[in-house]
Amino acid sequence: MSQPYKTHLTYEVSYADTDRMGFVYYANYLVFFERTRSRLLADVGYPYPKLEADGFGLPVIEAHVDYRASATYGDLLDFHGWLDSHTATRLRVACEVRKQGALLAVGYTVHACLNLQSMKPTRLPSRLAETLADPSDSHE
Amino acid sequence: MSQPYKTHLTYEVSYADTDRMGFVYYANYLVFFERTRSRLLADVGYPYPKLEADGFGLPVIEAHVDYRASATYGDLLDFHGWLDSHTATRLRVACEVRKQGALLAVGYTVHACLNLQSMKPTRLPSRLAETLADPSDSHE
Amino acid sequence: MSQPYKTHLTYEVSYADTDRMGFVYYANYLVFFERTRSRLLADVGYPYPKLEADGFGLPVIEAHVDYRASATYGDLLDFHGWLDSHTATRLRVACEVRKQGALLAVGYTVHACLNLQSMKPTRLPSRLAETLADPSDSHE
Amino acid sequence: MSQPYKTHLTYEVSYADTDRMGFVYYANYLVFFERTRSRLLADVGYPYPKLEADGFGLPVIEAHVDYRASATYGDLLDFHGWLDSHTATRLRVACEVRKQGALLAVGYTVHACLNLQSMKPTRLPSRLAETLADPSDSHE
Repeated sequence: MSQPYKTHLTYEVSYADTDRMGFVYYANYLVFFERTRSRLLADVGYPYPKLEADGFGLPVIEAHVDYRASATYGDLLDFHGWLDSHTATRLRVACEVRKQGALLAVGYTVHACLNLQSMKPTRLPSRLAETLADPSDSHE
Repeated sequence: MSQPYKTHLTYEVSYADTDRMGFVYYANYLVFFERTRSRLLADVGYPYPKLEADGFGLPVIEAHVDYRASATYGDLLDFHGWLDSHTATRLRVACEVRKQGALLAVGYTVHACLNLQSMKPTRLPSRLAETLADPSDSHE
Repeated sequence: MSQPYKTHLTYEVSYADTDRMGFVYYANYLVFFERTRSRLLADVGYPYPKLEADGFGLPVIEAHVDYRASATYGDLLDFHGWLDSHTATRLRVACEVRKQGALLAVGYTVHACLNLQSMKPTRLPSRLAETLADPSDSHE
Repeated sequence: MSQPYKTHLTYEVSYADTDRMGFVYYANYLVFFERTRSRLLADVGYPYPKLEADGFGLPVIEAHVDYRASATYGDLLDFHGWLDSHTATRLRVACEVRKQGALLAVGYTVHACLNLQSMKPTRLPSRLAETLADPSDSHE
């Protein structure tokens, strides 16, 4: 069975990201996850701004983070993300945050597909469902 | 000549607001200013959500902050705001952030009135212009 | 068996809290959770700034949020929080975010107790452990 | 007279950066400015984390932004920053935010040099003052 496509991006921690304990504030990891899945969607050929322009949204209905180690100002982080699973109407994206290989945080977000006009749940757009079913075509 | 109406609200600093120097991160003062002018508009009888529902926006075209002293996690702050000046199409709101009377920051924001349909500049809605001309009627 | 003490605070959503879908950005719920547990610790008699001054930290090692409905600019939210469970070295705090009674989000954070000098895990300070064992004494 | 050294970095706007008007929230430009001056200090050979490790801080005492055009989710922005002026104890850094060449925002921050032990104002470390006096040596 094939491995899911993994996206990768780097990020430099800003002073704004830190808190007075000296480390990246915990809520910011969800921003990191967003950056990662945003890149993942772009990599598999359906960038989120395009998806929104097509009338779809993917609001988060569940988020989970396990924090293993801390990061601070100036650190260069690696974000990795991949599609964990999906149904006709939902996606689950897994993310990892690493620093020089060491795992800082791992977690996932679950997204429901929303029709932005009616603001009601809907099926994933076929273009996305197909891409996700076989991402190998989109990013050679 | 009459003094402008001054709004006042209190705010408790969260851990999220701080940075690794131990104090409130400087950009957050612009969020404090937003909270203050939001309350100011509500106090003078034209809350910003109502203004947006009526098709107007007040995007910031200029912001300035002078930082005098620092605040940290758990501090109870006082925000004061008032209309500094306005023209047919622009507003200038002044804000102060204080802690137990001591001035922490002072500054202002300038706003252009925008038609949210056309996204073009427009005159302030008459309801707001009238209220601002004589706020004394709106908040006894 | 007694119910745990529940803290309660209110919060007004700022424009800064929203994103371009029009709702509160999902990471901000973790900031809401922080505000809630901060109030919880103050209510049970051991405010977090005091705990830090005593050389302890409670960094988050796990966070989870289930999102049920959205909030937007100007909404008045109710945050509820309570101690879910604790061991000699860890706490779990549960939080709910409601709007006019309706549940918007529910989740929890798990915290390890840290010695801020050595930055190593340590036992919860006895003062906190005792308070948590019987919070009924601290907030009549 | 020589031109000051200009630093340059790129940044991709996240969903978190936007607000419900659909654009980058105005306070985030001060975060962009921070990223820019952070890179500027690294480029001229004295990264801010090193400066802090040496016992110095450069808290912002004044900030100003003129907003000219808006940015939104997914935009690739260019940040440019340079030393505007400095005295024995203060720095002024200018910043521009551009999108495909078009100016979105321009402004500056003024920083006082702080001794992080005493938390009192002090002279800029000689290493920084010298570098700033002649940045041409530091980044060929």
